[in-house]
Amino acid sequence: MTRIVALETADIRFPTSQSLDGSDAMNPDPDYSAAYLRITTDAGDGIEGHAFVFTIGRGNDVQVAAIDALAGHLTGRELEPLLADMGATNRALMDDSQLRWLGPEKGVMHMAIGAVINALWDIKCKRAGEPLWRLLARMTPEELVGLVDFRYLTNALTPGEALDILRAAEPGRAERERLLLEGGFPAYTTTPGWLGYSDEKLARLCREAIADGFGQIKLKVGADLDDDIRRFRIAREVCGDGFPIAADANQRWEVDEAIAWVRALAPFDPAWIEEPTSPDDVLGHAEIARAVAPVRVATGEHAHNRVMFKQLLQADAIAVMQIDAVRVAGVNENIANLLLAAKFGVPVCPHAGGVGLCEAVQHLAMFDFVAVCGTREGRMIEYVDHLHEHFVVPTDVRGGVYRAPLAPGAGMEMRSESRGRHTWKPEAVDA
Amino acid sequence: MTRIVALETADIRFPTSQSLDGSDAMNPDPDYSAAYLRITTDAGDGIEGHAFVFTIGRGNDVQVAAIDALAGHLTGRELEPLLADMGATNRALMDDSQLRWLGPEKGVMHMAIGAVINALWDIKCKRAGEPLWRLLARMTPEELVGLVDFRYLTNALTPGEALDILRAAEPGRAERERLLLEGGFPAYTTTPGWLGYSDEKLARLCREAIADGFGQIKLKVGADLDDDIRRFRIAREVCGDGFPIAADANQRWEVDEAIAWVRALAPFDPAWIEEPTSPDDVLGHAEIARAVAPVRVATGEHAHNRVMFKQLLQADAIAVMQIDAVRVAGVNENIANLLLAAKFGVPVCPHAGGVGLCEAVQHLAMFDFVAVCGTREGRMIEYVDHLHEHFVVPTDVRGGVYRAPLAPGAGMEMRSESRGRHTWKPEAVDA
Repeated sequence: MTRIVALETADIRFPTSQSLDGSDAMNPDPDYSAAYLRITTDAGDGIEGHAFVFTIGRGNDVQVAAIDALAGHLTGRELEPLLADMGATNRALMDDSQLRWLGPEKGVMHMAIGAVINALWDIKCKRAGEPLWRLLARMTPEELVGLVDFRYLTNALTPGEALDILRAAEPGRAERERLLLEGGFPAYTTTPGWLGYSDEKLARLCREAIADGFGQIKLKVGADLDDDIRRFRIAREVCGDGFPIAADANQRWEVDEAIAWVRALAPFDPAWIEEPTSPDDVLGHAEIARAVAPVRVATGEHAHNRVMFKQLLQADAIAVMQIDAVRVAGVNENIANLLLAAKFGVPVCPHAGGVGLCEAVQHLAMFDFVAVCGTREGRMIEYVDHLHEHFVVPTDVRGGVYRAPLAPGAGMEMRSESRGRHTWKPEAVDA
Repeated sequence: MTRIVALETADIRFPTSQSLDGSDAMNPDPDYSAAYLRITTDAGDGIEGHAFVFTIGRGNDVQVAAIDALAGHLTGRELEPLLADMGATNRALMDDSQLRWLGPEKGVMHMAIGAVINALWDIKCKRAGEPLWRLLARMTPEELVGLVDFRYLTNALTPGEALDILRAAEPGRAERERLLLEGGFPAYTTTPGWLGYSDEKLARLCREAIADGFGQIKLKVGADLDDDIRRFRIAREVCGDGFPIAADANQRWEVDEAIAWVRALAPFDPAWIEEPTSPDDVLGHAEIARAVAPVRVATGEHAHNRVMFKQLLQADAIAVMQIDAVRVAGVNENIANLLLAAKFGVPVCPHAGGVGLCEAVQHLAMFDFVAVCGTREGRMIEYVDHLHEHFVVPTDVRGGVYRAPLAPGAGMEMRSESRGRHTWKPEAVDA
């Protein structure tokens, strides 16, 4: 019998605002940060559970406090029953009615639950000697359905329907696992497209992206229409007709403004328009989607829970669904999100970048391919080439594809030297 | 010139779970709590800004940490310019892109902005010697429109339309202020209806509510249908046909379940069904509203920002809109919410109860009557007779109406003895 000894948190920040990496119309100066969690046990096997919530700087301490508020639920608890029924473990955390009031099921407290759940999955994977994507992809459909909290979903997806989706994908799992190990999972790159870069840097990075084998790039837009047109023209000239170039507005626009702006960019054939307006505005996204078709609307990195994804799908508001590994309540809620997307036939192209988001979310996309949607067609994972060196199992992106990780774990463990070096010291950073 | 000296926070909790006051289908054992903020200045005039975020216990410390994270925006700042343009002050807090990432515009961080904004309004009111409702109700339509952040609203409400609404109400302001001072604002009571109460206590409290002059009561429902039918029957017998009895499910149901449950309660003629499902589920509320008509759907105490209210109104999902004083980003965002309701012709019946919510939200309802919607018809404020003794200006509810407060301030200041006595000491409370 193993007991959980401690939930240790750390406030880790990288001064990325100094280089304008990651600058967009809404987030001009992010300092990529991690509210970091390490779960230790008394097993003596060297296995720890690691996970984090990604933030962009100020407030990372608030996120850490939220994770700390959950320590009482796990410290001293017997580990094996928690891992054996991760569905029940997830529900127990979601059902703390006092903590639930702080959302409910959204924002800092919800993401904190995600960190705890993800850290437990990390332990479960390391104990099984499997990477998360494969551990999930080898669970039975019944086990997977048992992980999902169907509350508020059943008018769009019932447990029975979820089971049908998973059973339909079951026969092809072994073959798709082979294909994944052989060919990896497609990546697209946002590296060329940050707003803070010069036109020359944009053109150079577009050329490099194509040379590196990426099948799509993405440009940040939304600060100035003339700039966006000029930058899209440069990217289109460098990449050539037919090469997919997505556009990301980072919630910058009103609904009417989004429609007008996207129509002005439409001659450059955007692969999708991402986050055109408030992530809460389901009806607004639906209105934009109708107005800018055939340009596709994408969103999801700030969709705060499964209920928001359900509605975006019900309203035909999105043609591309972008899950994030740490915005929702962890692996369990993201399985719900993948099942919803499969039910509605919408491809999932996960959000990544920041610090550690590529490492984390690749597992979910690969699980989706092997055991849920059953295809890589139209699917790809965002990729940004920043800060991977800080992770114990950094992404391996070559030839425009994510290679499937084989190391045991959920992929979110940061190297201890990096954690030590980038632990935030308030006096040193704040002016 | 006055400078802000400090933002001092406190973690204040009342052990209400011991009495089952406040028990409902989703929140069985709340400990009513306040993440409390006191803003001090160097003016030497004895004026301080007081406000809080209401929580129900665990996690109140996280909410305090979120308020603390905003201190850097105000400490040492010159006070007068902040108060002179509260619209700009509000936008500056909302536009901290790093903190925004933690929501965006939802949950712990958004409510923290609300506490800061509300505390500044408290100072502004005290300096002007006015209660909040009257300070607002005497601002010009142009000044009021300048308080609102119209971002993400303009496809439902433009600044020009807001101005038209306020101008149309302007001629009757003086007369309605007189009517308000004379007759107060209608209250309804939730006191009889908590799930933890016996049938005898329910019947007795129903009789007392009518004797006290309340024009509506509300019953908590959603835990067990047979119990709800029995309790509704008792209440209906005591109150008589035609007396308004609302029902509150506190987010307990799936969409289909809500429809079936409300239909089973329909013979008892519920005045409205409140929070039938997830507060995020705009489309679900709309589906329920269509299915259970003519029973009206009400929600809003967990609607986390103006974008959610916009959609609930656009989708015809609610016939009663329930703002909360501390769930959104404070007075400014609630003015947006009141204007949205006026635009769509939906009555606002604020959520209250907890600790201090009655004291706070009455100002917004009274302002709505005098200067926005221009009527008390179909409007009432929730009332629960708990914990008012802890406030410097406790609500004055007599004869079923809130008497308009005349003391200067925003109404959220808790007595210093109460704050001292109920400051949370972790060791003493946690098992």
